[in-house]
Amino acid sequence: MISRVGEDWIFLILLGLLMALVSWVMDYAIAFCQEAQKWMYGGLDSNLLLQYIAWISYPVVLITFSAGFTQILAPQAVGSGIPEMKTILRGVVLKEYLTFKTFVAKVIGLTCALGSGMPLGKEGPFVHVASLCAALLSKFMAAVFGGIYKNELRNTEMLSAACAVGVGCCFAAPIGGVLFSIEVTSTFFAVRNYWRGFFAATFSAFIFRVLAVWNQEEETITALFKTRFRLDFPFDLQELPAFAILGIACGFGGALFVYLNRLIVECMRNPSLPVRRLVYPALVTLLISTLTFPPGFGQFMAGQLTQHESLVALFDNRTWCRQGVAEEFDYISHHHAWKHPQVNVFITLILFTVMKFWMSAVATTMPVPCGAFMPVFLIGAAFGRLVGEIMATMFPDGIHAAGSVYPIVPGGYAVVGAAALSGAVTHTVSTAVIVFELTGQISHILPVMIAVILANAVAQALQPSLYDSIIRIKKLPYLPELGMGHHEKYNIRVEDIMVRDVRYITLNSSYRDLQEMLMTGQLKTLALVESRDSMILLGSIERLQLQSLLSLQLSRQRRLEYLRQLAQDNGTHDHLPSLTSDSTPSSPCTHTHLNSSTNSSAQVPVSSLMQITEWEEQQLDEPVDFKNCKIDPAPFQLVEQTSLHKVQYKQTTSNTNEIQILTINHTHKKCAIEGSVTVTGVKVRPPLASFRDSGNTTNVSEVTELHKLCIQCQV
Amino acid sequence: MISRVGEDWIFLILLGLLMALVSWVMDYAIAFCQEAQKWMYGGLDSNLLLQYIAWISYPVVLITFSAGFTQILAPQAVGSGIPEMKTILRGVVLKEYLTFKTFVAKVIGLTCALGSGMPLGKEGPFVHVASLCAALLSKFMAAVFGGIYKNELRNTEMLSAACAVGVGCCFAAPIGGVLFSIEVTSTFFAVRNYWRGFFAATFSAFIFRVLAVWNQEEETITALFKTRFRLDFPFDLQELPAFAILGIACGFGGALFVYLNRLIVECMRNPSLPVRRLVYPALVTLLISTLTFPPGFGQFMAGQLTQHESLVALFDNRTWCRQGVAEEFDYISHHHAWKHPQVNVFITLILFTVMKFWMSAVATTMPVPCGAFMPVFLIGAAFGRLVGEIMATMFPDGIHAAGSVYPIVPGGYAVVGAAALSGAVTHTVSTAVIVFELTGQISHILPVMIAVILANAVAQALQPSLYDSIIRIKKLPYLPELGMGHHEKYNIRVEDIMVRDVRYITLNSSYRDLQEMLMTGQLKTLALVESRDSMILLGSIERLQLQSLLSLQLSRQRRLEYLRQLAQDNGTHDHLPSLTSDSTPSSPCTHTHLNSSTNSSAQVPVSSLMQITEWEEQQLDEPVDFKNCKIDPAPFQLVEQTSLHKVQYKQTTSNTNEIQILTINHTHKKCAIEGSVTVTGVKVRPPLASFRDSGNTTNVSEVTELHKLCIQCQV
Repeated sequence: MISRVGEDWIFLILLGLLMALVSWVMDYAIAFCQEAQKWMYGGLDSNLLLQYIAWISYPVVLITFSAGFTQILAPQAVGSGIPEMKTILRGVVLKEYLTFKTFVAKVIGLTCALGSGMPLGKEGPFVHVASLCAALLSKFMAAVFGGIYKNELRNTEMLSAACAVGVGCCFAAPIGGVLFSIEVTSTFFAVRNYWRGFFAATFSAFIFRVLAVWNQEEETITALFKTRFRLDFPFDLQELPAFAILGIACGFGGALFVYLNRLIVECMRNPSLPVRRLVYPALVTLLISTLTFPPGFGQFMAGQLTQHESLVALFDNRTWCRQGVAEEFDYISHHHAWKHPQVNVFITLILFTVMKFWMSAVATTMPVPCGAFMPVFLIGAAFGRLVGEIMATMFPDGIHAAGSVYPIVPGGYAVVGAAALSGAVTHTVSTAVIVFELTGQISHILPVMIAVILANAVAQALQPSLYDSIIRIKKLPYLPELGMGHHEKYNIRVEDIMVRDVRYITLNSSYRDLQEMLMTGQLKTLALVESRDSMILLGSIERLQLQSLLSLQLSRQRRLEYLRQLAQDNGTHDHLPSLTSDSTPSSPCTHTHLNSSTNSSAQVPVSSLMQITEWEEQQLDEPVDFKNCKIDPAPFQLVEQTSLHKVQYKQTTSNTNEIQILTINHTHKKCAIEGSVTVTGVKVRPPLASFRDSGNTTNVSEVTELHKLCIQCQV
Repeated sequence: MISRVGEDWIFLILLGLLMALVSWVMDYAIAFCQEAQKWMYGGLDSNLLLQYIAWISYPVVLITFSAGFTQILAPQAVGSGIPEMKTILRGVVLKEYLTFKTFVAKVIGLTCALGSGMPLGKEGPFVHVASLCAALLSKFMAAVFGGIYKNELRNTEMLSAACAVGVGCCFAAPIGGVLFSIEVTSTFFAVRNYWRGFFAATFSAFIFRVLAVWNQEEETITALFKTRFRLDFPFDLQELPAFAILGIACGFGGALFVYLNRLIVECMRNPSLPVRRLVYPALVTLLISTLTFPPGFGQFMAGQLTQHESLVALFDNRTWCRQGVAEEFDYISHHHAWKHPQVNVFITLILFTVMKFWMSAVATTMPVPCGAFMPVFLIGAAFGRLVGEIMATMFPDGIHAAGSVYPIVPGGYAVVGAAALSGAVTHTVSTAVIVFELTGQISHILPVMIAVILANAVAQALQPSLYDSIIRIKKLPYLPELGMGHHEKYNIRVEDIMVRDVRYITLNSSYRDLQEMLMTGQLKTLALVESRDSMILLGSIERLQLQSLLSLQLSRQRRLEYLRQLAQDNGTHDHLPSLTSDSTPSSPCTHTHLNSSTNSSAQVPVSSLMQITEWEEQQLDEPVDFKNCKIDPAPFQLVEQTSLHKVQYKQTTSNTNEIQILTINHTHKKCAIEGSVTVTGVKVRPPLASFRDSGNTTNVSEVTELHKLCIQCQV
C-alpha cells in the first residue's frame, strides 16, 4: 500500500517544500520592504514634508506597480483566489486560473502589495498560489514521469490538498489550515483526502518554521504569535457572558464588513464612474497612508506599526490599563505606539478598530492580489483588546469571588475577538483552531469556541460569507448551496425546477435539424435520444462534436468531390478552382459558411451556385451519421421525483451539464450559474470528462453498439 | 434563517445538556466505585489474603454484573458502538441498536465496567450513547411536536452531530470530538453538518466542565489532564528524529494491537471452546486483577493507580529519572507508585507498557460495553514517557548546542506517544487535536503531528483500523472503501463487477412470472422494465409490494366471489362454508397458500377443488395490474462506463439496493455486505426511502402515469 501511495507522498512533499519556501521568501521580502520604508521615513525626521512624501510615495509606488504588473501579466491573479478555487473544486474549469503566468503575477504582485503596508492579507492568495503550485507540479510530473500524474481526478484531489497547504504554511497552522480550507472550499468532503491535506500542510508548516530557525530568527519551532497567558486560571466562568457578547458583536461586525466590501465593489463597477485600473488603487493607497502617517492622525491609531507588530502587541498578556490610567509599558518597543501622552488608550483602540475597519474594507477591493483574512483578524484582535481592557478596568481584581485574586487577561479577549471576527467574515468555525495554532495556547478554547459559534450564527443570518459574496459579484458559475435549516428543500423535487422543453436530437435527425439546433440553442451539451416517440436517452454529445459533424458533412473535400462528379457528368471544368478556393474558410461554423457561399455569388456562375446550394440542401436532409461521434453514455440522470438534496449530492460529485440544464431556470434563487453564459473565459465541464476520454477501448465498443442501434432504427 | 434553524438549536442544546449530565454522573459513579474499592482494599491491610480477595472480587462482581445485565436487557449494547454507528450512518438500519432498552443497558453496563478498574475506555460507547440519546430525543420530539422532527433525513444529520457530542463530552474536547467522529464514521462528509457538531459538542463540553466547577472539583474550566510544560522552548529541533521514531514505533504497536484483538476474538469464537458469556469476562477480570494486585506483581507496574491517575502522572512535566537514577518525586501522591525501592523506573515503565498492552487487548474483547481508546491512549503515554526518560538520561542538559540549557521534557514525549498510538489503532489523525484539548497545551503541535502521521502511515499499511476490524468480525453490512492510493480503481467500471442477469419484471408480466420470481430470487427490490425488448427501466418495486399484489390477486375475497359466481351458475351452495374457512390462512405468502389448498382436499369435494385450482391457474396467467403498486421511480442508475469511484460517491449518498445488487458479486474484495443476507436483525434500506413515502401527492401522479403506460403497452 505504501508503494502505491508513493507518488502521492512524493508529490505532497514537493508541494509542501515549494510552498514553504515561497511563503518564507515572501515573508522575508515583505519584511525587507517594510524595513526599507521605516528606514526612509526614519532618516528624514528633520523635515515633516519630506517625511510625509517618503511615507506615502513608497506604498503608492508598490501598489501601483502590483496592480499594473498583475493587470498586464495575468488579470486572473487579482484578489483573494479562494472564491475561484471554490468554483474550480466544484468541477468548473476557469480558464487561465492555474497557469505559470498567473503564478508569477500572483507571487510578485502579492509581495509588493503586502510590502506596501496596506491592510491586506496573505492567506487567501496563498490558497491560490498553492493550488497554482500543485497544478504546475502536476503538469511537470505528468510531462516527466507520465502515468498516474496524468489522472485528472487525482489532480483534483491534490488541488484540495493544496488549499490546505496554502493556509497551513501561511500561518504555520496545519490543522487549522486543513479545516479552514475544507470549510471554505467544499460542500461535501471526502475523508479520503483528509490525510493528504494533513500531511502536506504539516510538512509545509514544519519547513516554513524550520527556515526561520535556520535563519537564526527563532531558537526553536514555536507559534507565529506566541502568547504567554497564565495556564492555571486562564479565565473565570463569570467572564463567559462578556465573551459571548464579544462574539455576537463580532458577528454583526463581520456582516457589516462583507456588506461594506460589496457596496464599495458595486460602486466602483458603476459605469458612470470612469475609474482607471491604476488610478483607483493609487488613490486608495494615498488616502490610507495619509491617514496612518505617524506624525499626523496616525499617532492616535498606532499607524507606524505593521500588522505583525500590532498583533504581537494586542496579544500581550499584560493589562495596558488599570482603573482608567494607562500603565507604563515601555518594555517592548512596539508598545509605546499605543500609548499617546494626551490620549487615553481606549481612544487609541477605538480609533484603530474603526479606522482599520473601513480601510480594510476599501483596501481589499483594490485590483491587486490580496486577501482579507489578516486585516479582519487584526481588527477583531483590537476590538477584543478594547473589550478586555474595559473589563479589566471594571474588575481590577478579577471577578472571582472566593479566595485568590486572578486579574482579567485582556490579551485573552484579543484572541477571542480575532477568532470571532475572522470567523464571522468567512463563515467558518475553524478560525478557532487557527488562533490556537497561531498563539500556541489552547487555554482559551471555551471562550473562543463560544464566541466563534455565536459570531457565525449572527453573520450567517445577515450576509453571505465574504467568499460567496465575491462569487456573486464576479458571477462565477457556482451552484449555490441549499442553505442550512431550509428543511422545506427536502421536499423540492427536480420536477419543480426542471426545464421541460430540453433540446434533443434523435438517431434519425437530419443534418438540418442539427444545424437549426446549433444555431438557436446555447447549451454546451445536447441530449441524444433514440427516437421522438420512445425518448430513450442514449447519452449526451458535446456541442463541439456536433459542429464538427456538421462541418464534415458540408466540408470542402466533399464539396470538391461532388463538383468533380458534377464536372465529369457535365464535362465542364472551368469554374472549379475559383469556387474551391472561395469555400475554404467555410469549416468550423455554419454561420460563416452560409455567408461565404452567398458572398461568393459574384465570382461563380449562377448555375453552378444553384447546384451547390441544391447539393447543400440535399446534404442537410440526410440523416446524421453518429458513427464517429463521441457520445458520453453516462451522464447523470435525474428523475422528476428526485429530491433537491439528492441533486446537491450528485452535483458535488461532478458538475455535469445536465445539472446546468436543470438549474438554469432555477427560479427560487438567482443562481450564480446563470451568469456563466455571459462571463467570458469560463467553461463548464465535468471534471471526470477528460478521464473518461482516456478509456479509448470502451469508446470503440460504445460507438459500435450505437451504430447497431442506428441501423436498427433506420431499418 | 435563525428562526428556521431554531428547532435544530433547541434539539442540539437538549442533546448536549443531556449528554453532559450523563457523562458527568457516570464519571462521578465510576470515581465512587473506584474509591470504594480502594477503601475496602485499604481497610484490610492487616491480612494479605483478605486484601487480595477484596481486590479481585470487586472487579469480578462488577464485570460479571455488567456482562449479565447487558446480555439480558440488550445484547446490542456490548462493545464499542462506533462500528455500528459507522454502519448506521451509511444508511443501514440495524435493529434494536437505537432503542431505550439499549440506552439503559449501555449506560449502566458501561458504568459498572469502568468502575471495575479494568483497562477499558469510555469514548467509543459514548458515541453510541450520544446517538441513542439523539434517536430517542428525536422520537420524543416527533411524538410531542411532530413536524420537522419526523423527517428522517434530518434525524440522520442529527445522528452524525451526536457522534461528535459523544466524543466531545467524554474528553471535554469539542474540536477533536467533531474531527474524530468525522474521521471514524464518515467517508464523505457534508460541511453543512459541521456547525451542528461543533455547536453541540462545544455546548456539551462546556456543561460537562461547568458541572465540575459547580461541584467544587475545579476552580474554573480547564482541560481534563492539564499539563504545565514550559512555553518558551517546548522542544528542540534536534529532538524531532526521536519523535519520528516514537511515531513509527507506535504505528507498529497500533497494528499489533488490532491484530492481537482480532486474534483473541476469533479464538473465542472457536466453537470447540465452550466459553460461557459470563465465565469468560469473569476469568479475564480475575487474571488481570490478580496481576495488578499491588502487593504482588502490581507493585512493579503501578497497579494500584486508576487510568486517570496514571495519565496525570505520565503527563507530569518533571523528569523522573536523571543519569539513570530516579529522582525523589514524593510531592504528588500518585508518583510513588512509579518508584519502587528495588526496581528502576525504566523497568516499571516497560512492564507497565507491555502488561497493559496485552491486558487491554484482552479486556476489550469482553462482552461488556467498553471502548479501547483510553487504554490505548494510556499505553501510548507510558511508552512515550519511557522514550522521553531515555532521552533525558542520554542528554541530561538537553541537546541544544548554543548557549542556554533547556532540559528535555519527558512529559512531552508521553503526550506525543499517547496521540500516536491511539491514532494508529483508530486510523485517525484527529487524536492530535484531542490530545491538545485534553492537556490544554498546543506547544508540542509539530512533534505530535509528525508522530501521528507516521504512526498512521505505518498502521494503515499493516492492518485495518480497530473499528473496521470489528466491522469485519461482526460481518456488519458495510461496503468497504476503495482504499487510498488504489489508483487502478479509477479505471474499474461498473461493467466489470455488475451482475448481468438481473431479475426484472415487465409491464406485461403475468402473476405467474411474479410468483416464480418471488419464490426463486432473494433480492429485496426488483426492477420493473417496460417490456422484454425495450428494457426501459421504469423503476423499482419492493418485494413486499409484489407479495401483496400476488396475495391480493389470489385473496380470500376474490376466491369467495368466484365461488359465489360458480355457485350461482351451478345452483349448488353446500360446500361453500367449509372451503372459505379453510382458505383463510392463505394470504401473505403463496407457499402456505399452495400447501393449505392441497391439505384441504380431504374436506372439500374434488370437483370444486379442481375448479379452484383451475381458477388459480387462470388468475396467475393474468397480467399483473401495477395500478396500486408503489413504484420507486428514482433509483440510482449506473451505466456500464461509470467508474467505481463514482459509485462510491453515489453509495455514500444513499445505500440503495441497486448498489447491493451490484456489489453482491463484487469478487475483488470479500465485501462485508455479503454477510448481510446471513446476519439476522439487519435490514438494508435507503435512508431516504421513508422520506419519499411521505410525499403522497406525487405518488398518486406516478401511479397515474404508470397506469397510462400500462394501457399503452397492453393495447
